[in-house]
Amino acid sequence: MAAAAAARLLRLAPRRLQVPKASPLAALSFPLPRTAPLAAASGRRQRFCAAAQASASAPAAAATGAAGEAVGEFRKRLRVADVKGGEDEGAAWVGKELAVRGWVRTCRAQRTVTFVEVNDGSCLSNMQCVLTPETEGYDQIDSVTTGASVLVEGVVASSQGGKQKVELKVSKITVIGKSDPTSFPIQKKRASREFLRTVAHLRPRTNTFGAVARVRNALAYATHKFFQDNGFVWVSSPIITASDCEGAGEQFYVTTLLSNSAEGGSLLKDIPATKDGRVDWSQDFFCKPAFLTVSGQLNGETYASALFDIYTFGPTFRAENSNTARHLAEFWMIEPELAFADLNDDMACATAYLQYVVKYILENCKEDMDFFNTWVEKGIIDRLNDVVEKNFIHLSYTDAVELLLGSKKEFEFPVKWGLDLQSEHERYITEVALGGRPVIIRDYPKEIKAFYMRENDDGKTVAAMDLLVPRVGELIGGSQREERLDYLEARLDEQNLNKESYWWYLDLRRYGSVPHAGFGLGFERLVQFATGIDNIRDAIPFPRVPGSAEF
Amino acid sequence: MAAAAAARLLRLAPRRLQVPKASPLAALSFPLPRTAPLAAASGRRQRFCAAAQASASAPAAAATGAAGEAVGEFRKRLRVADVKGGEDEGAAWVGKELAVRGWVRTCRAQRTVTFVEVNDGSCLSNMQCVLTPETEGYDQIDSVTTGASVLVEGVVASSQGGKQKVELKVSKITVIGKSDPTSFPIQKKRASREFLRTVAHLRPRTNTFGAVARVRNALAYATHKFFQDNGFVWVSSPIITASDCEGAGEQFYVTTLLSNSAEGGSLLKDIPATKDGRVDWSQDFFCKPAFLTVSGQLNGETYASALFDIYTFGPTFRAENSNTARHLAEFWMIEPELAFADLNDDMACATAYLQYVVKYILENCKEDMDFFNTWVEKGIIDRLNDVVEKNFIHLSYTDAVELLLGSKKEFEFPVKWGLDLQSEHERYITEVALGGRPVIIRDYPKEIKAFYMRENDDGKTVAAMDLLVPRVGELIGGSQREERLDYLEARLDEQNLNKESYWWYLDLRRYGSVPHAGFGLGFERLVQFATGIDNIRDAIPFPRVPGSAEF
Repeated sequence: MAAAAAARLLRLAPRRLQVPKASPLAALSFPLPRTAPLAAASGRRQRFCAAAQASASAPAAAATGAAGEAVGEFRKRLRVADVKGGEDEGAAWVGKELAVRGWVRTCRAQRTVTFVEVNDGSCLSNMQCVLTPETEGYDQIDSVTTGASVLVEGVVASSQGGKQKVELKVSKITVIGKSDPTSFPIQKKRASREFLRTVAHLRPRTNTFGAVARVRNALAYATHKFFQDNGFVWVSSPIITASDCEGAGEQFYVTTLLSNSAEGGSLLKDIPATKDGRVDWSQDFFCKPAFLTVSGQLNGETYASALFDIYTFGPTFRAENSNTARHLAEFWMIEPELAFADLNDDMACATAYLQYVVKYILENCKEDMDFFNTWVEKGIIDRLNDVVEKNFIHLSYTDAVELLLGSKKEFEFPVKWGLDLQSEHERYITEVALGGRPVIIRDYPKEIKAFYMRENDDGKTVAAMDLLVPRVGELIGGSQREERLDYLEARLDEQNLNKESYWWYLDLRRYGSVPHAGFGLGFERLVQFATGIDNIRDAIPFPRVPGSAEF
Repeated sequence: MAAAAAARLLRLAPRRLQVPKASPLAALSFPLPRTAPLAAASGRRQRFCAAAQASASAPAAAATGAAGEAVGEFRKRLRVADVKGGEDEGAAWVGKELAVRGWVRTCRAQRTVTFVEVNDGSCLSNMQCVLTPETEGYDQIDSVTTGASVLVEGVVASSQGGKQKVELKVSKITVIGKSDPTSFPIQKKRASREFLRTVAHLRPRTNTFGAVARVRNALAYATHKFFQDNGFVWVSSPIITASDCEGAGEQFYVTTLLSNSAEGGSLLKDIPATKDGRVDWSQDFFCKPAFLTVSGQLNGETYASALFDIYTFGPTFRAENSNTARHLAEFWMIEPELAFADLNDDMACATAYLQYVVKYILENCKEDMDFFNTWVEKGIIDRLNDVVEKNFIHLSYTDAVELLLGSKKEFEFPVKWGLDLQSEHERYITEVALGGRPVIIRDYPKEIKAFYMRENDDGKTVAAMDLLVPRVGELIGGSQREERLDYLEARLDEQNLNKESYWWYLDLRRYGSVPHAGFGLGFERLVQFATGIDNIRDAIPFPRVPGSAEF
């Protein structure tokens, strides 16, 4: 049957018997030098996908002979970082032929040669390309402007300039996409961060935002690596939730009741209503009010009560009208939950996690981190090294209050047992009192903490912790969870929360409850902490804040 | 100054000078046998977090002497998978002392011994624990019921039963959290999947859902590994978006206008309105209508136009009233975007990606995959091996239509050039005509595809592709994107889309446009494909569908 169908196809489409054609673009995509010195040059190996190798080793004739053509092989593409990212900054590539694709950062014409800086996003470094009037395609030089995309082919040579070890002697340049220099918004001159937010679709083409994007990516991958290596399972907690577990004040509604059916906008009279003039939620998509999640923790706990250690890594939301440099309406959270664990385990995990991811970017994003150290926050590398190398200290809230009271320092906000610590207090503790050491403050008064935190034996405090780092303040908040049903129900009552809506959360305490603990980390705060970027709106590709959800 | 503060703290809290106390729970958490044979036993190394090691090697006195206590060390915890997951199924552990924490699956009392099966979520296998009346804690045996959490300590021994190589001779059992056997919803008997959806907080404690969660986790991690190893940067595309790029019909509104301030529910009259009775969006959180994203592609393209290859992996949404086994209102999508790439590159990437992740779970989730092969879909391992080993074929839409017309088979839906292919057509092609080979159909008529797909030279088709696999049908859809400004604007006009709202997307074609291509993959479809799970609601922890956003 299959053979017959294939035979029919052969008659119908004899041209399909041709040897697979390589696309012209694909052919240009992997211009490896004949003897690729990549492993030696950059310390990274050119990795061919294992699966692709497996498929390549299968007899191609079997595929192309049947019907259609075999799909081509996929392999990692050569990038500027592969050439210049190694210890020798590309010296091993001298004399090799190469093609670079990317975007023009600058074009400087000198008397006999023209220097074109091409960036392909793989690293901060551009490839300096040297053109002469003899270069093929030199007649297009007027189109080689900032922002244009080009393909440059040539031979790697030692560079005379002091800024880089190698450059490309260009034999041919092809302008792929022009960029009108009079209107391109990202000019060579430094644009303000405020302005760049209005062109968030183009700002990753700047040094700063390219570096932020790469470091953000490295932090995310290091997060997965840390938890996976330690046996944690990634769980996707739901984004839309009908359980109003955290009070609806700061939650966004998710609805289909406002459908824009009427020309010119939703008419109020089209919104389904009950007889007494209330929104008729039974006609909404989920048949009841639904919200965007503010935390995946409670859901995460359900999986920690089955799979042991888990972590979530997903977006969360706050409909908070805060126009500050530290708040986003939409941000990513990392929320691990450890089963059979107490607050000490939780603190140990938070510390090891933070040290791991910071160490990871210091080792894997050297060039970008040097850039931040020079241009964004002087001394950031030292600050981060401190985090990796110094022991983290834990200190009870009570001791922290005594330390602050004993400091004789005048604070703006009052210091008193039972009041929450303010940013100025936290910074004093970690920067002054403990001399730049990261610190965890634990065992907070229960009145100022959430219902799910485990009550300590003193009856006054809960097993909560905040991890503070110098200059940034609180980075991580966590707690051991109340695993005792009666205590948890009492806490819900105390806080006037409706026990019925927590039925499934309480079930975890009814059936095989275990001591467990976890923490939450706002990923954009981590990006700020790791890059020195002041404003959290610059730590996420497309920030969502009051009044703006552009792009 | 810091020294003075520290000295004050010492006076205030002299007890802090004590040597750090290990928590009793932590002490129980790592009961490694004195000579841990883990590396030999399981082929996995016990990995201690590198960062934690670094901190441990710093002088502890410097930390504890100052103020507070040093945070304890974090390390990977020993799990049942570490013991039983190796080639020898735990034989190297015989004679070693061990502690297991987990949840009781079954408890069978025989004449002289009692068998308790304990599962800790790290793998499908339970640890068979053998108790006798002499076991410490045996007086609690009535509480050792299905669902209870326990700590069992003992010595690993060879098992007499045929089902496992090793078991635990228990010296001590501690019931941590009871589980009332009369009300615990997950009893030994197989519960229906429908029922289990009503207890989604407990279903990961079943074999099936534990296995799905682990395979889902492995697929997610393999996804990150594949793209990271190939130089792609993870980009978080926004979840909330005010650009109604894909038409608002299937989008959820995100709003704060419905705030539940009135007792008993939102009053319609409290919703801000304009004079002509329309919803006054200017008073909403984002000052205009905002939606949940249906795709991160357009945002992803902006980063691919700066950083080269990128991928997104995040939640997306459809307010589609489809109560089917293949639709969710909230699902995770993977959307890579390749710069300087055409449709051939795109197909090669999709193929290599799929082969990589499938190979990854076949190699890393053997026990779970055997379970699916036996209990969920017989033959699934063969089916997946085919995907890894066989060449993928590509075939134009036109040839596919000719193949279908030539088949003489009666289809329910009509086959005609210009109509979309239905599931039955796709299955015929991949299962019958091509004998179980994965196939990519490409170059679809432009009328049935999205505006952003690149027009082919024939003027009739676009460079789109759908990847089909046997039994499941379409798994991946992708295209080369229209990088030519004039073509793209013409397509927007043709489809009556508003060019102004695409200003930033069009900018990518104005400034340094490059050929680029990408694809999208619904992650839950991939989980279905890889596990054989019929209903997509069982492929995600907490499914969101019309009428339900519980938990």
